[in-house]
Amino acid sequence: MRKTQKIPKATITRLSMYYRQLELLEFDGYRMVSSEKLAWLCQINPAQVRKDLGYFGEFGVRGVGYDVIDLQTQIKKILSVNRDWNLGIVGMGNMGCAILMHRNLSLRGFKCVAAFDNSLDRIGMPLSGGMKIQDIKELKTTIRNLNIEIGVITTPASAAQGVADLFMAGHVNAILNFAPTRIDAPDCCLVENIDFTVIMDILAYKLHQKMAA
Amino acid sequence: MRKTQKIPKATITRLSMYYRQLELLEFDGYRMVSSEKLAWLCQINPAQVRKDLGYFGEFGVRGVGYDVIDLQTQIKKILSVNRDWNLGIVGMGNMGCAILMHRNLSLRGFKCVAAFDNSLDRIGMPLSGGMKIQDIKELKTTIRNLNIEIGVITTPASAAQGVADLFMAGHVNAILNFAPTRIDAPDCCLVENIDFTVIMDILAYKLHQKMAA
Repeated sequence: MRKTQKIPKATITRLSMYYRQLELLEFDGYRMVSSEKLAWLCQINPAQVRKDLGYFGEFGVRGVGYDVIDLQTQIKKILSVNRDWNLGIVGMGNMGCAILMHRNLSLRGFKCVAAFDNSLDRIGMPLSGGMKIQDIKELKTTIRNLNIEIGVITTPASAAQGVADLFMAGHVNAILNFAPTRIDAPDCCLVENIDFTVIMDILAYKLHQKMAA
Repeated sequence: MRKTQKIPKATITRLSMYYRQLELLEFDGYRMVSSEKLAWLCQINPAQVRKDLGYFGEFGVRGVGYDVIDLQTQIKKILSVNRDWNLGIVGMGNMGCAILMHRNLSLRGFKCVAAFDNSLDRIGMPLSGGMKIQDIKELKTTIRNLNIEIGVITTPASAAQGVADLFMAGHVNAILNFAPTRIDAPDCCLVENIDFTVIMDILAYKLHQKMAA
């Protein structure tokens, strides 16, 4: 990658989507894929695929396409997911447990190494892999001991900012927030929000357009 | 809206984000908001806010900004979320339960009216609001009886396509898919996928860039 070039977030998102499709193609026994096919699978246009990959080098062979396995390796390297990342989850309700047991996360190197709650009913509860739900008070020590690099917040909205502050105090500067609220964080901390209601809105909009057509 | 104009999906996504911020602004007691402030809250540029809203008409007053409550009403109308939508969820593990109990979904008019599973351990289990987990075999009848318009899939990947087929057979043509797999559907069916691992990839990429800087 040319060092001076800023890569659009949409390109990074699509690289991750390409990677998912390449995994499925490999599973289905494909060894090569054209940009046309990859684009079709991702519901975008082929020029976009070539442009996105073009930021990082020349991966395909003209008229032949991309090597399905090789391109996966390259994309993993670009995205820095060719290594493991340690996750800590706070808020062990249904959403927290769903994330903890999400098989694809750990398969892709996102390892949940610790889980926390503030409820006495949950603290101490055994989890898979010999883990136990820890008291949120132990967050700071555990961040250091287990080298937690990414914080996942699955608490109610009212608790989210407080938990984010604890993560930042422990020098965890990347947060994935599932709580339906805004997290205030300085520029040095990365926050990505997952809001199901936004995607639901998109679906409702499209469905209404279709019904009105 | 000019009927002939195709609205980009990114605009629809941002409208939904504006709506979230307007709700929070209202909660904080604001009556007016400038495009600059709204843009800053959404981490985009003010011209984008004006362009997105411009697709649908003139909502602001030059030099004054937008009425916080009025713009919410307008956006709800544009997104067709000024009415309720009936949801049916299939797969009542942690993720299914998390969606079912997601307070903000129902507050925004996305009502979970039925929940299904195929496990004998779960079928018949009572849920909040007098609901019970139903046998997946009852999906088709329940779609008709309760007018389910949006299907939510929270099953393991291996079951997702089968469930999608059942929804489509019941004429549910909008699906929100949480299962980490691709759903094959004809053009008449809308499918939106939520893949946490894509967002995790984005976070890992940015974190690595920051660590390398």
